[in-house]
Amino acid sequence: MLVAVVGGGQLGRMLALAGYPLGLSFRFLDPEPDACAGKVAPLVVGPYDDLGSLARLLEGAEVLTYEFENVPVEAARWAAERIPVLPPPEALAVAQDRLAEKTLFREAGIPVPPLVRVDDLASLRAGLEQVGVPAVLKTRRLGYDGKGQALIRDPADADGAWRRVGGAPCILEAHVAFQRELSVLGVRGRDGTTAFYPLIENLHGDGILLRSLAPAPGVTPELQALAEGYARAVMERLGYVGVLALELFERDGELLGNELAPRVHNSGHWTIEGAETSQFENHLRAILGLPLGSTASRGTSAMVNLIGRDVEPGRVLSIPGAHLHRYGKGIRPGRKVGHVTVVADDRAELERRLALVEAGMG
Amino acid sequence: MLVAVVGGGQLGRMLALAGYPLGLSFRFLDPEPDACAGKVAPLVVGPYDDLGSLARLLEGAEVLTYEFENVPVEAARWAAERIPVLPPPEALAVAQDRLAEKTLFREAGIPVPPLVRVDDLASLRAGLEQVGVPAVLKTRRLGYDGKGQALIRDPADADGAWRRVGGAPCILEAHVAFQRELSVLGVRGRDGTTAFYPLIENLHGDGILLRSLAPAPGVTPELQALAEGYARAVMERLGYVGVLALELFERDGELLGNELAPRVHNSGHWTIEGAETSQFENHLRAILGLPLGSTASRGTSAMVNLIGRDVEPGRVLSIPGAHLHRYGKGIRPGRKVGHVTVVADDRAELERRLALVEAGMG
Repeated sequence: MLVAVVGGGQLGRMLALAGYPLGLSFRFLDPEPDACAGKVAPLVVGPYDDLGSLARLLEGAEVLTYEFENVPVEAARWAAERIPVLPPPEALAVAQDRLAEKTLFREAGIPVPPLVRVDDLASLRAGLEQVGVPAVLKTRRLGYDGKGQALIRDPADADGAWRRVGGAPCILEAHVAFQRELSVLGVRGRDGTTAFYPLIENLHGDGILLRSLAPAPGVTPELQALAEGYARAVMERLGYVGVLALELFERDGELLGNELAPRVHNSGHWTIEGAETSQFENHLRAILGLPLGSTASRGTSAMVNLIGRDVEPGRVLSIPGAHLHRYGKGIRPGRKVGHVTVVADDRAELERRLALVEAGMG
Repeated sequence: MLVAVVGGGQLGRMLALAGYPLGLSFRFLDPEPDACAGKVAPLVVGPYDDLGSLARLLEGAEVLTYEFENVPVEAARWAAERIPVLPPPEALAVAQDRLAEKTLFREAGIPVPPLVRVDDLASLRAGLEQVGVPAVLKTRRLGYDGKGQALIRDPADADGAWRRVGGAPCILEAHVAFQRELSVLGVRGRDGTTAFYPLIENLHGDGILLRSLAPAPGVTPELQALAEGYARAVMERLGYVGVLALELFERDGELLGNELAPRVHNSGHWTIEGAETSQFENHLRAILGLPLGSTASRGTSAMVNLIGRDVEPGRVLSIPGAHLHRYGKGIRPGRKVGHVTVVADDRAELERRLALVEAGMG
């Protein structure tokens, strides 16, 4: 049974590694001939919106999925006329537009910071009066890992911020003073069954995920239930099938919706060793109509991204509970080339091991 | 870093799946063009003793290893003149000859049943007088999964047994009345460090492994230490590097040496989910000179082979703690095409889940 995947990065690679034991085979589409999923499965090299490449990708496949959210929606819709595309193309459309995303959050009952739509400098200035400062100007499209954003501390900075985002359609959002960033990963099957991993605590630097802790410390059952309810509401509104990540800000026990990712997610990499069923396997189970696997954690986990640097494998692998994941990518500044997951039975031991990992990466 | 592997079956396939996260790449050699490891990594199709095929296998590789013990020793020695071959070819030579194997066991201080060398019908008859009945006549070479064996209950059966084994060089061994079959998996690094998984209890049918329980129930620390000492003695005598499986019979608290496998082993498949580090990853760590990973178990596990039949994935995957491993092989009678591992926190829950798995396979 062949799964076609748009995007050939590390998320795709880990999908394939999770799917081979289920007896699945994979084919990827990526414009880069050295895309790292291509080292573990056949790769069609071509643009995401090239119908010839898409046709080659689809041939004989049971289902098409994707590993990043900037797949052209038209390409996904074209494919969906031929084979099941899951998650549904509508999820891509929403995830690609911060305004649609925040609108969905509101409709799903998820609190969001005050925000306005910004189409030009005039609406930015009007928005600043409405939202106040500090505020964040974010391009509606193609923003990820902290790109396409400008923090505005003073209304007089409007012009500079507008230039920094290139004058693209934006939202202006009140800058939220939050205690921490959390994410919840949900999975929804073809039959509408849902399951949720424990809330994850994420630490970002320059907009890039540095480290996750799972289960997040100090989460009450009520907070977990609140997050699950939000993720479920989003998935149900989208008729979603697969794994979805919902990024949240925690502020005084309240959760604010930040972003969604209609795919497996960096903050869920710990599930490979730290959960009964990994996010990758559960995504595949969902899109293939198989029963979802348990999302319970096994022990307590931390995940540290390797960004723009490798590690000496011998140092990491000598640390108890540490698991190395390299993506087979060349090293470039700011590029995610791997991650390390650390698992332990309790939080104190986890912290001790994590300190060893971070020292070993220095 | 490229690892060359002789043999492209499921053990090789699972080696590759364990090695990709370490950033390794793989190349396999197998005479069968549809060898299942070839679905996850490049495959050189050719005979194991063909030097041209071997040369293509080795090109650019860091190390050569193998996933079955009937690799021609001469081919392994030829390769060892070019790159490191681990485990060492000597381990192949011993594993391919039951007489050499049992001799090694004796030298390593491992009790074995009374046995004699048999080269012809006359030595078989003489052997039966010495060893007594019941006894098992086993070909010295190419015996696996119960093939090449004849049980002799009466000395008058000597002629028939000799015909059944094809008149090949044999050993005649007293038939041991044992309580159960156990195996111990050891791993030895390039620096001589060793680690051992908990003893595994194995159930065979017609000489093929049906089911393993790990850790084996009712094992005292003394029995574990005894098994580890035996495996360590064998590995040290062979200058061994990699994972080695030592199959044992338990008889009244004593352990008798049965067979060794100089490779990852079917009875260790549970380690993928049921141990801190899988046997596959530890084999790779060992042969690459990386630190060995923890061999501690995570919960308690059972592994059930899928022999000559598939399962309905939906049925297996709906069982808590069950993990499906299909090898991507066509189904033929007697052929191992996959396995299911079940993990639980305690033995009672494991038995309950295992019963569901076995019912689902009916």
